[in-house]
Amino acid sequence: MKADSKKNSDKHRRIIQAAVKVFAKNGFFNSKVSEIARAANVADGTIYLYFQNKDDILICLFEEEMSKVLDKMRHALEGITDPARKLERFAQAHLSLLDESQELAEIIQVEIRQSSKFMKEYSNQQFHEYLNIISTIIKEGQAQGVFRPDIMPGVAKRAFFGALDEMSRYWVLSSVKKYSITMAAKQISDFFIKGMLTHNSED
Amino acid sequence: MKADSKKNSDKHRRIIQAAVKVFAKNGFFNSKVSEIARAANVADGTIYLYFQNKDDILICLFEEEMSKVLDKMRHALEGITDPARKLERFAQAHLSLLDESQELAEIIQVEIRQSSKFMKEYSNQQFHEYLNIISTIIKEGQAQGVFRPDIMPGVAKRAFFGALDEMSRYWVLSSVKKYSITMAAKQISDFFIKGMLTHNSED
Repeated sequence: MKADSKKNSDKHRRIIQAAVKVFAKNGFFNSKVSEIARAANVADGTIYLYFQNKDDILICLFEEEMSKVLDKMRHALEGITDPARKLERFAQAHLSLLDESQELAEIIQVEIRQSSKFMKEYSNQQFHEYLNIISTIIKEGQAQGVFRPDIMPGVAKRAFFGALDEMSRYWVLSSVKKYSITMAAKQISDFFIKGMLTHNSED
Repeated sequence: MKADSKKNSDKHRRIIQAAVKVFAKNGFFNSKVSEIARAANVADGTIYLYFQNKDDILICLFEEEMSKVLDKMRHALEGITDPARKLERFAQAHLSLLDESQELAEIIQVEIRQSSKFMKEYSNQQFHEYLNIISTIIKEGQAQGVFRPDIMPGVAKRAFFGALDEMSRYWVLSSVKKYSITMAAKQISDFFIKGMLTHNSED
């Protein structure tokens, strides 16, 4: 990414915000940098002061949003000590986050997967941090003797994320919600919590 | 799709098989119909006797493969009566299927999500059938009093599929497997089975 020092400038922010709208409306592949420039009310060339290309805009957009998501998730979990309640809160917060912006949800669920560079070459450090919030909770639960010691946190974190992600994907693509977010979050976290508990202390 | 009567012909099959290789190698968006024609050893124009365009090839490829996957999954579950064992078998078969062909796994996990037509407009009847195998097992378990009546099969089927799908996606993109398929399948199905059981009869 170019122009790191300008990252927080007004134009940088405007370009990112315009890209969210343009990608969500036309799809990543059909979007042109010139359209993003027009929507951001900057000259085409200005975009290249901040970004190398369209993939770079997408990755930067994703990183900024993931950074906010990580902050929000950490904030949502603050003050909760019980690992089971933390997983429940994680599920609730995860499903709510995508519900807050339909455009952003569409980009994360659909458009981002259209960037080969993103899917294959980008290491996506923040996504790993996000998954590791889940595995940390599971390890805490194991250390406290609440979750079974044979649970593999590396499998469980992906399974838990995948379960929530598929629910989000369905909602983004179908635009009809048969279940409330609260209800789906409770069901999904319950599978995992009950599935990981050492005792059936929670029935 | 054009030329339905020719669907099973040798050329149709060769084009599909060539498309799997070309899409996996170059990615869906960078692949050209002419490359697929060359790999299939047919004239460019021949492709259009069977398919409308590149999206149509991808969708047809997906439908043929999903049809095989559905057959294999139904076959894998034959003769099992216990709903918990069925879910375990489903997880094992699901993770094994993608392991059988790395090229096909890459297309399903990465390339198919690059077709906007596929992601947004295609109703994907076979995918729903696949998900409904899961919800049918859950409903059977509820009817038998094995799974809790408050489980929502529509949420559980997506959560279970999502958990397995995320594991597959990770393996396709990372190319390193830290866990065996059998072990991951057992862990993931265990979360859901234990999470859905009425009694803790299985500890």
